[in-house]
Amino acid sequence: MQTVNAKLVYNFEEANASMRDLLGGKGANLGEMTQLGLPVPPGFTITTEACRYYSANNAVPEALLGEIKVALAAMEKKVEKRFGDPARPLLVSVRSGAAVSMPGMMDTILNLGLNAETLRGLVAASGDARFAWDAYRRFVMMFSDVVLDIPKARFEKIFTDAKRALGVKLDTEVPAEHLEKVCGDFRALVEKTRGETFPDDPWTQLTLAVEAVFRSWNNDRAKVYRKNEGISDAMGTAVNIQAMVFGNLGLDCGTGVAFTRDPSTGENALYGEYLMNAQGEDVVAGVRTPIPLAELRVENPAIYDEFCKVGERLEQHFHDMMDLEFTIERGRLYMLQCRVGKRTGAAAVRMAVEMVGEGLITKAGAVQRVKPALLDQLLHPRINESDKKKKGVTAIATGLAASPGAAVGRIVFHANDAVAEKAAGQKVLLVREETNPDDVHGMLSAEGVLTARGGKTSHAAVVARGFGIPCVAGCEDLHIDEEAGTMVVGDRTYHAGDFLTLDGTTGAVYAEALALEPAQVTGDFGTLMSWCDEFRTLGVRTNADNPRDAAQAIAFGAQGIGLCRTEHMFFEADRLPIVRDMILTNDERQREAALAKLEVVQQADFEGIFRVMDGLPVTIRLIDPPLHEFLPSFEDLVKQVTELKLAANVLGGHAIEQLLDEKQALLKAVEFQRESNPMMGMRGVRLSIMMPGLVKMQTRAIMRAAIKVKQAGIEVLPEIMIPLVGHINELSLVKGQLEQVAREVLAEAGVEVPYKFGTMIEIPRAALTADQIATEAEFFSFGTNDLTQMTFGYSRDDAEPKFLKSYVDMKVLDANPFETVDQIGVGRLMRLAVEEGRKARPGLKCGICGEHGGDPESIAFCHEIGLDYVSCSPFRVPIARLAAAQAALKAKAGEASQASGE
Amino acid sequence: MQTVNAKLVYNFEEANASMRDLLGGKGANLGEMTQLGLPVPPGFTITTEACRYYSANNAVPEALLGEIKVALAAMEKKVEKRFGDPARPLLVSVRSGAAVSMPGMMDTILNLGLNAETLRGLVAASGDARFAWDAYRRFVMMFSDVVLDIPKARFEKIFTDAKRALGVKLDTEVPAEHLEKVCGDFRALVEKTRGETFPDDPWTQLTLAVEAVFRSWNNDRAKVYRKNEGISDAMGTAVNIQAMVFGNLGLDCGTGVAFTRDPSTGENALYGEYLMNAQGEDVVAGVRTPIPLAELRVENPAIYDEFCKVGERLEQHFHDMMDLEFTIERGRLYMLQCRVGKRTGAAAVRMAVEMVGEGLITKAGAVQRVKPALLDQLLHPRINESDKKKKGVTAIATGLAASPGAAVGRIVFHANDAVAEKAAGQKVLLVREETNPDDVHGMLSAEGVLTARGGKTSHAAVVARGFGIPCVAGCEDLHIDEEAGTMVVGDRTYHAGDFLTLDGTTGAVYAEALALEPAQVTGDFGTLMSWCDEFRTLGVRTNADNPRDAAQAIAFGAQGIGLCRTEHMFFEADRLPIVRDMILTNDERQREAALAKLEVVQQADFEGIFRVMDGLPVTIRLIDPPLHEFLPSFEDLVKQVTELKLAANVLGGHAIEQLLDEKQALLKAVEFQRESNPMMGMRGVRLSIMMPGLVKMQTRAIMRAAIKVKQAGIEVLPEIMIPLVGHINELSLVKGQLEQVAREVLAEAGVEVPYKFGTMIEIPRAALTADQIATEAEFFSFGTNDLTQMTFGYSRDDAEPKFLKSYVDMKVLDANPFETVDQIGVGRLMRLAVEEGRKARPGLKCGICGEHGGDPESIAFCHEIGLDYVSCSPFRVPIARLAAAQAALKAKAGEASQASGE
Repeated sequence: MQTVNAKLVYNFEEANASMRDLLGGKGANLGEMTQLGLPVPPGFTITTEACRYYSANNAVPEALLGEIKVALAAMEKKVEKRFGDPARPLLVSVRSGAAVSMPGMMDTILNLGLNAETLRGLVAASGDARFAWDAYRRFVMMFSDVVLDIPKARFEKIFTDAKRALGVKLDTEVPAEHLEKVCGDFRALVEKTRGETFPDDPWTQLTLAVEAVFRSWNNDRAKVYRKNEGISDAMGTAVNIQAMVFGNLGLDCGTGVAFTRDPSTGENALYGEYLMNAQGEDVVAGVRTPIPLAELRVENPAIYDEFCKVGERLEQHFHDMMDLEFTIERGRLYMLQCRVGKRTGAAAVRMAVEMVGEGLITKAGAVQRVKPALLDQLLHPRINESDKKKKGVTAIATGLAASPGAAVGRIVFHANDAVAEKAAGQKVLLVREETNPDDVHGMLSAEGVLTARGGKTSHAAVVARGFGIPCVAGCEDLHIDEEAGTMVVGDRTYHAGDFLTLDGTTGAVYAEALALEPAQVTGDFGTLMSWCDEFRTLGVRTNADNPRDAAQAIAFGAQGIGLCRTEHMFFEADRLPIVRDMILTNDERQREAALAKLEVVQQADFEGIFRVMDGLPVTIRLIDPPLHEFLPSFEDLVKQVTELKLAANVLGGHAIEQLLDEKQALLKAVEFQRESNPMMGMRGVRLSIMMPGLVKMQTRAIMRAAIKVKQAGIEVLPEIMIPLVGHINELSLVKGQLEQVAREVLAEAGVEVPYKFGTMIEIPRAALTADQIATEAEFFSFGTNDLTQMTFGYSRDDAEPKFLKSYVDMKVLDANPFETVDQIGVGRLMRLAVEEGRKARPGLKCGICGEHGGDPESIAFCHEIGLDYVSCSPFRVPIARLAAAQAALKAKAGEASQASGE
Repeated sequence: MQTVNAKLVYNFEEANASMRDLLGGKGANLGEMTQLGLPVPPGFTITTEACRYYSANNAVPEALLGEIKVALAAMEKKVEKRFGDPARPLLVSVRSGAAVSMPGMMDTILNLGLNAETLRGLVAASGDARFAWDAYRRFVMMFSDVVLDIPKARFEKIFTDAKRALGVKLDTEVPAEHLEKVCGDFRALVEKTRGETFPDDPWTQLTLAVEAVFRSWNNDRAKVYRKNEGISDAMGTAVNIQAMVFGNLGLDCGTGVAFTRDPSTGENALYGEYLMNAQGEDVVAGVRTPIPLAELRVENPAIYDEFCKVGERLEQHFHDMMDLEFTIERGRLYMLQCRVGKRTGAAAVRMAVEMVGEGLITKAGAVQRVKPALLDQLLHPRINESDKKKKGVTAIATGLAASPGAAVGRIVFHANDAVAEKAAGQKVLLVREETNPDDVHGMLSAEGVLTARGGKTSHAAVVARGFGIPCVAGCEDLHIDEEAGTMVVGDRTYHAGDFLTLDGTTGAVYAEALALEPAQVTGDFGTLMSWCDEFRTLGVRTNADNPRDAAQAIAFGAQGIGLCRTEHMFFEADRLPIVRDMILTNDERQREAALAKLEVVQQADFEGIFRVMDGLPVTIRLIDPPLHEFLPSFEDLVKQVTELKLAANVLGGHAIEQLLDEKQALLKAVEFQRESNPMMGMRGVRLSIMMPGLVKMQTRAIMRAAIKVKQAGIEVLPEIMIPLVGHINELSLVKGQLEQVAREVLAEAGVEVPYKFGTMIEIPRAALTADQIATEAEFFSFGTNDLTQMTFGYSRDDAEPKFLKSYVDMKVLDANPFETVDQIGVGRLMRLAVEEGRKARPGLKCGICGEHGGDPESIAFCHEIGLDYVSCSPFRVPIARLAAAQAALKAKAGEASQASGE
């Protein structure tokens, strides 16, 4: 058994923002606010270490209870109330708070300390029996849900029935005596369900609540959230125990949440929502639609003013946009929480850029602050306005613009349906009355989220923004019946499967699938990107197989093409038959003729790309996949031949016989090309060695295109890349043949075009023998998809559906290695190849063109091992620019701290 | 252009055995014999450097002709004849001779220097016009074949026609005037074919012949031979020019070849064959059947005695068995060649052991001398005598026991047929009247070779011994008509496709497929093996999946099982249905039931193996292949379902519908298990993680078997091996579960059995993270088959037929990496894994269980990187013991030479 020697409880006065790991974010910042002299109700925090001890030993550390008692006594003194005292009862809130903010994921209990006796005291103190009984009602419900594991819904049903019997709608309309009856029913439910009475002793309530928070660290919702956010399960949560203040003591009370700037747009103006005569949970739960904070200025200018100053003070103090929770108790402001605010990509960019202008942070700080993954939102498609105009479509409803970006998809009403439909290849929108934590997996599978209730800080809005999913929330014109599977707007009814388009930037909802278009890198975004370019040393190229993608990437700041896959061009409908002829013929002349036809179209493809790239380097990979990818399906042919054989036997006839012969010949040809493990078979350079005509044709097409474009006055920098090399001899053989072709074509035209021959490093052996390979290769490009496949021995197609997802869930792997480079295995090969390759060829240009080239963590690794550039899909180019800049800044900071001997 | 400054021609007096690389083996040893004062006709050698110059420049070095002239003049002086002198003409032989002996592969010209005028001188000098014209006939034919590229067969036809017209059979029966006519016809054929007269000028003849030898270095036969023997194409050949001595000047003349010991059995007795009145080519070509050398003792005791002394002298000098060529000219012995003799595996072993006894070499020398690959012959199956007796089979004919070992196969008459049939999976015997170099590829594809003509030094015999293929030669009772495809023995006719059994150890031929059985390691073989065990430090284990193989391996000296594949046990007919049930069911209870059934049989399997291994370690690999390997063929099911669907549509009926349903369900299940790249899919440890029941069952079966065998008083050392680990977490997860099973089973029985859990290192990532993996693995076993597949990115099944053979032919790869470990790529991973694994777990046991464990070159590498053992198939255990000893001796020699500062 572990032992804990450290101090387990800290009063807020003893805490500060640097103690995050020990006290959680909430506790550390409550401490910091206390230190700043802000109006924080007194309280204390139980450390994450106590939680870790609990997780390991399934019991609280011995010393804990004593420490809590001491801290509680200090709190009693400050508020001049006593815990469990019927006369002046002290009530507390118990809240979890991990080092990393996990909104909506952990559980909270308010009004703890209430029982029949203290309730009387509360009635006396507040002079409001309705308030006191309502507080008790909430407490029993929350406590029973969190601690006693009795679903909230069962209590809500009792309360709803009571309201219905009374004929009232609002909670506040229920008189005290009815609330007392409801509370009695609640306690009866507890007794019936658990076989024991609801605990009345405040100390018992408190210790049970603390344990429940510890337990809740490992509940399923928390685990799912942590998995999605990459948060370690080992951290544990702190517990904050704080004297209650009440926002629901009357109309001079209230509660709210606010951001010091708009978390959606980034606008520099206090932004938030509040409700008068309500407790905190009423705002975030979306039960009542809250009021914009601006109205508080009218309603209570003094409080508003005070709050503005607090916000400003905190922003200056934390140098960042802050997310605040406050309560007004009888006209007095209390700060209940502050934390760095979550924000959309657009807001992150705007705030970062504006804060530099305000002198709040530096450019480097701005660049380091924006999460690369958030940019993805800015690169989300938006509605193509001309398509909308052309179609004459207008919005059927408008809700809150809760998470920006447009999304098109079919309606689904249930999270599980979203997951299933997505797995079946459908794009869906999750449409809910409101969402709750049980819907998160469905939100992650949806293109966008639409809710009828809840504000911009509702669950749906917060989660959607966090994950960069477009969201329209609180769209009150919608009448959603999830059970029936209908969404009614006015007199029209929509069903599951119908298409909608959401605009999370404006809040508009369209009953049609509109065309979307990508975003531009302009304004603040452009500014931030230009700062990134000042800091980063890693080049950013793009993977593009056609002029359209190339142009998009250039618009996003790509500095060249790192991977142009030539075989995609073969799949186009007009070319596939020629490619098949080329593969299937045994006649050398027929093959030559097919290649000649392909050369013409390939040359045109390359011309288009070279024109767009306008002098930037273009790395073209020669044909890579096995030839059978271009042939008809083996399975279909087996079926056809079997059918035709039966038909020939039963019916006979010349036509059937002839067709059978043809299909049999085709089947034989397909069979010949078939492989047990095509990923590791006859492809890449192997194909080029066994069938050199194809790559010679491609080289001619590349060089002829280059000549033509050059003759039109545009610079061209082709880099011809030979894939799947595992042995230096493969490279030297093919390179020798192709260089001859290139020289011949150039000599014939009498034009000089600079060109390079290089290779992919995607076979482990290529990395292991990089020193040899670099003697022939003028550049390396890491094909980390295949390199990962072979280093792990994973066929991605098989591994992902069959075991890789389970591996990540079971923590066998920390991450899917096809998404983030496995630094210790695959990365070791990469590092070694760069080092040894450059030893053999100083200054050898090294890049990466696997999908990892667009993953921020992998980009940081690429910076670390000294790659010259990363190449990624056009839409990830800005992300890569930012990630590259952050990597450079981080490395610089590391060097600086090393230099200063830290 | 390269230049050559060195001396290009060496007289035999200037040469010695150490100049092999420069003068070729033949030239160096002719020099050595000359230095020893043995009777060698004078001559000189043109260096291999001249040949290399020729290969590079397609022209002889300028200085060469001058040097030849000087050397020729010296020769003329010694023999008191002159080149081109009509009165006392000097005739010479021109022979190639590379540094490494290449029997029958390079071309020879005898009697060079003859023309109309010198012929008259030869007639006068020999007093034998028939002899002189016959010499001219041979010269014209050889020269035309080698230099002028006119096939020998066209000349032979002219000669055969002439003999037929004369009604004679033997060449010696053709009178001089007819030979003159034949020579005229020969010259006419040359003139007609080449458009110019046959060269008469001896100097022209000589220079053309030298060039032809240089050219012949790159002829196809030579290339094929070199490829098979792993000889570098870059070495080049020397050319030996030597004064002719004649074995065909009359009955006091003769020629022969001999070995100082029997190359087939190793017996220490002069062994050879000769022909009186013949030239050397007559002996080796198999035209006349030569006489055993023993008869020379009777016919010419003085010469025999002299020759015996020469043989003894040479053996003492070279410390090895020598292969000699000699000619007797008018009662005088001349030595034409000596070289270390090729030998069978049996002979190599016996000679090595006996020479130690004779004090000629040391034990270490004996061990180092025997080529590991040769042992394969000793391990060749022999005829199972009881099967032969039971079947009452007797030999249909008996020939010469030309290459030991027994072979069973179907008759083929043509080399190409042998290749084609082998490719089709047939075992064949190549049956020929006699073989020639054009048959080599067919011999390599055959289980054995049978010829009707030729002695033990005939082409068939020499080549078969060289490659370790059983051979019966000179089986004169056979009448073979290759064109008709028949072999007649007595009154029975055999056709292509009929079965024969050959016994190359006795010379017997049986007209039936007899059962074969393996050899034993006894006698000299046993002695040599015991010496190996004294020197080697590398352990030798075996790959065995059943008690039979395990027993065989123990008999061959295996020290344990390095790889016991458990899945092979699943393929047995009585088990496969249970395995299929286990895979296909979705019902957990049904699966448990199937596993329970399998556990019983697996336990019995393991008991059998543990009993045989009697306390030696047994490494058992848990299930490795993907489950679909146990299911019916997808293709067959597609066909069946397609047929049944049609039948159901056309005919209908309950039975068809039901069958269709069943097959469709099965197809769906098979489809579910199907993978794009099964080699890299759901198998090995991945399967164990996703479906732990299977390996838990296996672990239970292993431990229960171990307990039972231990209770019977036999020690057991199970080493449970988890395959396909790529990440430490995979290993720790599965190992954790299985250790628990093992402990439970042992606790239940109350028995202690030592056991280990280890892993295969076969995924590149496992090697790269060996330091982590070694923290969990108690041993490593390199699965170099998969490790090679993944490091190269080769699927062996696809690569070998599609490009790997071409890669080796085209020299893209030096060797097939599945046969010999790729030291720089795969080997680097292995070295790294051993080093880093042992850093994490000092003394970590490391072995290899891939096929490379039986390859001598790979074994040497395994020694070098410090493996503890190699594991190979039972029949390769002795080879591995020898290779391991040689590796240890070589390393010791290396250390010694380093220590002495060499």
